[in-house]
This record gives sequence, C-alpha cells and structure tokens, in this order.
Amino acid sequence: MELWFTEKQTKNFGITAKIKRTYVTEQTEFQKLDMVETEEFGNMLILDGMVMTTQKDEFVYHEMVAHVPLFTHPNPRQVLVVGGGDGGVIREVLKHPSVEKATLVEIDGKVIEYSKQYLPEIAGELENSRVEVKVDDGFMHIAMSENQYDVIMVDSTEPVGPAAKLFEKGFYEGISKALKEDGIFVAQTDNPWFTPELISKVFKDVSEIFPITRLYTANIPTYPSGLWTFTIGSKQYDPLEVNEERFHDIETKYWTKELHKAAFALPKFVADLIK
Amino acid sequence: MELWFTEKQTKNFGITAKIKRTYVTEQTEFQKLDMVETEEFGNMLILDGMVMTTQKDEFVYHEMVAHVPLFTHPNPRQVLVVGGGDGGVIREVLKHPSVEKATLVEIDGKVIEYSKQYLPEIAGELENSRVEVKVDDGFMHIAMSENQYDVIMVDSTEPVGPAAKLFEKGFYEGISKALKEDGIFVAQTDNPWFTPELISKVFKDVSEIFPITRLYTANIPTYPSGLWTFTIGSKQYDPLEVNEERFHDIETKYWTKELHKAAFALPKFVADLIK
Repeated sequence: MELWFTEKQTKNFGITAKIKRTYVTEQTEFQKLDMVETEEFGNMLILDGMVMTTQKDEFVYHEMVAHVPLFTHPNPRQVLVVGGGDGGVIREVLKHPSVEKATLVEIDGKVIEYSKQYLPEIAGELENSRVEVKVDDGFMHIAMSENQYDVIMVDSTEPVGPAAKLFEKGFYEGISKALKEDGIFVAQTDNPWFTPELISKVFKDVSEIFPITRLYTANIPTYPSGLWTFTIGSKQYDPLEVNEERFHDIETKYWTKELHKAAFALPKFVADLIK
Repeated sequence: MELWFTEKQTKNFGITAKIKRTYVTEQTEFQKLDMVETEEFGNMLILDGMVMTTQKDEFVYHEMVAHVPLFTHPNPRQVLVVGGGDGGVIREVLKHPSVEKATLVEIDGKVIEYSKQYLPEIAGELENSRVEVKVDDGFMHIAMSENQYDVIMVDSTEPVGPAAKLFEKGFYEGISKALKEDGIFVAQTDNPWFTPELISKVFKDVSEIFPITRLYTANIPTYPSGLWTFTIGSKQYDPLEVNEERFHDIETKYWTKELHKAAFALPKFVADLIK
C-alpha cells in the first residue's frame, strides 16, 4: 500500500507527496498537527492540513524571513519572532552576532515539542542561551510590548485559525508600537497566484502605518504556487538602500548578497498588486 | 464524481488539479497528448503526462524565454523557435518590431493543431505573416542550418521522449553553427530542486561552446518546484551588460526591466550548481 498526503492548496489545486511514515497526528489546543516523513522532502510539519516546513526546503523560508530585515537594520540587538515554533527563523537570526536576544512567542507548545523531536536540525537552536521561548499568544505579546524590539518577524500560518488576527491592520499598529523608533518588521504574506487580494490588503495596511513598505519573494516548492511573498514595514531603513559593506559572511543555501536586492524585483503582475 | 489530474513530477511528489472536462486524449506519432480544462488554471496542455502550458500561467514561461534574449541582442531579425508548438513563444517574439521572420519548427503537428483549437490566445499569432511554421524535427533543422539566425529559442519538453537529444552537447554545437557570429540562444533547463544534475551538465556543455553562458530563473506554478531555469549561450552579447535604454515598451505580465537582470541573481544552492 502506498500512502500519499495531498494538500489542497486551493479548492481545485494541490500538491501530493508520498509518505514513508506518520510520526504524529494530533488535535492540539489550537490546530491539527501532523508530522510525517515524506520520500521527497524528508520530515514534514503539517498544520491544519497545510505544509509548514520540510527538511529539504525549509532553508528558503527561514533564511529569507531572517536575513533580509536583519541585514537592513544596521545593528539589530533585540529580535522578536511571532509564531515560528519550529525554530528555523531563530536559527537564522542567531547567525547575526549583533543579536543579543531573540524572543520566540509561539502559541502552540506542541509545535515546539514535536519540532525538537522530529526536526532537530531546524529546532536545535531553540536551546541557545541567546533565545527566550515563550508559549503564548503573539497578538497579546505584541499588544503589551512598547519600544522594545529592533526587528520583529511574523512567522505565522495562513490567515485561518489561530493566525487570522495576525493579518489585521490593528496587529501591524501593535507591531509599530512594539518596535523601537528605527525598527523594522517582516511578515509572510502568502502567494500572488491564489491569494492576490491578501497581498494587496496587507501592503496597503502596512504602508498606512510604516513610512517604508516593501514586498519581496522567494521560491518555496512545497508552498502554494512555489512563489512566496514577504512584506516589510520599516520606520527608517530601506532594504533597497542597504550599504553592501554591511553584508558579513554567513552560511546560507538560498540568501546571497545579490538576492537581497533582486528578491524585490517583482514580476509585473505582482508589482501591480501593490500599486 | 470529481476528476483530478495528477502529475507525478518526481517518483514521490506531484501536483493535482481538478478537471472540468477532457477535450483530447490521444497518442500522436510522438507522444501522449491530453488537452483538459482545469478549474484552477483554465485549459491545460499535457504531453506524456507532464503539464506543458496552461491558460492561467503560460505568460511566465513564454515571456521569459522570449524577452531576455531578444532584449539582449541589439537587433534580432531572424528568430528560430525549436519546439513550442503551442505558439506562446512566437506570440512574445512578435512583440519585438525588429524581428522580420520567426520560424517555428515543431515535430508534432498535433500540438499545433490542438493548441490553435483550445489555446487560441496562446497560438493565435502562429497565423501571423512574419511567422513560418514547419512541422519537422528541430534537431535536423538545426543540423542543416548555418549562420542563419540571430536568436534561437529551444522550447522543448523534458529530456525524455522526442526531446532527449535536445539536451545533448552535439545539439548545442549545432545551434552555435546555425547562429550568426553574434547570435544568442536560450533553452529551458528544468528545475534545480529535482533535476540539479541536468542544470550542471547543460551549463558545462554550453560554456564549452559559447563564450558567454548564463542561467536565469522564473516562477511557474504548474512546473515542478515552481522554479524554472533557462540557460543562455551567447557569442557576443551579455544579458547582464544590456544597455537599459534598449528596453522598449512592451506589454507583459511577468517580464519587467528590473527582472531582466534580477532573474540572473540565483539562490545560492542554484549558483553552486554552475560553479
């Protein structure tokens, strides 16, 4: 018998992956959590039926969330990751020596627990002494923070279930308040093929709060359409105006100095979404 | 009853699309040809079980094959398209007024016939007076051509079946001979996630024949991994050294002046394939 996991990425389109074994299938307090081993992408974390990360392609998302804002800010010391319980963004954040403390606020402790167990090369740095892990509501954490962070990264699930409120304008206002006066934030904002309205809406909301708003992309094969977008809101620093001398050497598999800027060169139909 | 078409893009991974109806399912002289209507991507041409083009995302491939070499060459007049019987590359080629004649050499007349019928907005320009359509073997056509073309585009299927010989070094030597002394060619060269060896091999072969060899990418959601590569071999003109004043206005949905160069900024793991 062959087992295949199929994610319907839209009502009418999806991806399908052959499964070697299922490690976990559990209804947590917040969502359905599956951890499986796939033939093609190694271990895979699935939340509410949607692929969150896989061993083979996780580096793209995690590097591109972390390094673009961290190389844009001249001296990031206090960093907050909202969501991201698999620990991949934290791992990349720690590659920046200026970072004194990285705080992770993940609402679902089970995501952290199973990631440590089945995705150790992604979650391993959650034990690092520069990291504080809080199992808590990221929305509330943001609401109670003021002038505290240099960089905030929103590593959420899709805007359904527990993450829905992380795509509301009020949340971005909270982020602005939680950031220092020269702070910068990034959020994953889905894909332009199946959810163009979301990208337009978030970009508009963010640009009404932050003086500098930018959209960039990366290729993630297990995410819908393979083309993922990230929206940056920044109070002072423009990712397109980075002094390239600031790029120190870090070990990456996706991010490069050239891609840092090239990732903002959008296909025309994507650029049209944020006009 | 719901009908879903599934393409196994690798042995262990694939995409699946809900089908409204099947227009054609036929074994031609060269390959299995299916033309279906999907819910998500409109009409879809499938050859030997692999998605070739769809109404919704066809513009990416066709624009990026055509405009990158045509804007690199300062005065492209004679253009050859090998394969590409759906007519999409030809449609984009004709947007360049310098082009006097575009020749299409497609081995399978059925691809042309059914594309005209079911993909009219893609194939419509095949009737243009600047176009010559030949139902013939592209490999042989190249072998018999000398000093004839300014730009050659290889719009082939994957390196199995009728297109296998279009990925051999001897074919690229033939292309070099068929090109004028300042000619340039481009070939689609699959994706870096599932077929990294192919990209490395083609790049090496081409760089042993052409003084300038470059790799660029585009996002095509219905192609494996969503990240497609294109390899350029050029005798004189470097796509990265294009004078931007040469970019005339054309109507596109993917290609932009900025993307023309940004598409060559490769993710590190892709850049490593062609070192």
